[in-house]
Amino acid sequence: MPPDATETKRRLLTAAVEEFATHGLAGARVDRIAENASANKRSIYMHFGTKEELFDRVVADSMSELAQAVSIDAGHLPDYAGALFDRLRQRPHITRLYLWAGLERQQPIDAEVREYRRNVTAIEAAQDAGRVRTDIPAVELMAMVIALVISWDTASWSLKALQAGTGHDPVDDRRAAVTAAVAGLVHPR
Amino acid sequence: MPPDATETKRRLLTAAVEEFATHGLAGARVDRIAENASANKRSIYMHFGTKEELFDRVVADSMSELAQAVSIDAGHLPDYAGALFDRLRQRPHITRLYLWAGLERQQPIDAEVREYRRNVTAIEAAQDAGRVRTDIPAVELMAMVIALVISWDTASWSLKALQAGTGHDPVDDRRAAVTAAVAGLVHPR
Repeated sequence: MPPDATETKRRLLTAAVEEFATHGLAGARVDRIAENASANKRSIYMHFGTKEELFDRVVADSMSELAQAVSIDAGHLPDYAGALFDRLRQRPHITRLYLWAGLERQQPIDAEVREYRRNVTAIEAAQDAGRVRTDIPAVELMAMVIALVISWDTASWSLKALQAGTGHDPVDDRRAAVTAAVAGLVHPR
Repeated sequence: MPPDATETKRRLLTAAVEEFATHGLAGARVDRIAENASANKRSIYMHFGTKEELFDRVVADSMSELAQAVSIDAGHLPDYAGALFDRLRQRPHITRLYLWAGLERQQPIDAEVREYRRNVTAIEAAQDAGRVRTDIPAVELMAMVIALVISWDTASWSLKALQAGTGHDPVDDRRAAVTAAVAGLVHPR
């Protein structure tokens, strides 16, 4: 592939991440992605196929990037949650893509399934080693740790309005709250 | 208002709940709502205004219905979580509307703010009474309890695929997992 095509693909992916994270799959407009990438619409179909295929690619790339950046430490799940929290603060589009995909695209991604299998296996090992409670299945604990990490992102804007009323948005406190919450969640009974 | 107008409004709201829960705000089609309500598009604008206003009405009604059905019991947050879990099993569209609203409509709803304020005040009282941990602010605990209740709804389809592989979807076990998780989360340190 000529270098300019590679460069166009890169610009299209960057624009697609922004568009899908902001508007989701249904709300995204392919012509806006093309315009923001200084490319034409046809180049999207040529490189990535349909809008749905481009969305899947963007979601898969983002989840893969997150998994590369933050590895599970099943013996220290509060630390893992803190590291995930930090990463998602840096890359907030990943949380939004994750939530859109859950609502709009109800299908697994092979590489992500493999990643989750590794993580769940690691949590099971930590359960066997007595480091994590055993009365909740590892697959549920995985879902719950993630849910706590993104709990403020999924909170209602009506609840957020209560805190906005206090005049500050204490991110450092929130990180401490997330790690403390995960510690309480996973602690062996 | 003539009785037939009231009846049309009711049918439109029912159709709108279904349409918005399935497709979200951007993905919803007003003509599909009208068609499913055996009404015409003009009647939507007449009764409810814009698509956004209809969405806000549907979300506000659903959240109000949920708050009426399940009252907080801040001294027994695991039981509250179990009751919320049960209600949302019966009314799964509420969870989806909640998530869509968080992504697509970043604004508080007055009645919902008042409801959250009552709940957060109740959690603060339970903290003062030594029934709930005090190292995480009540407003964050509120967000975290909800996050745990809907943790399987927000889980990635790639994680769900792991459990689908086991051949069953144990809802009763999940309810027990949610109440146990909330107990671990809120337990005073």
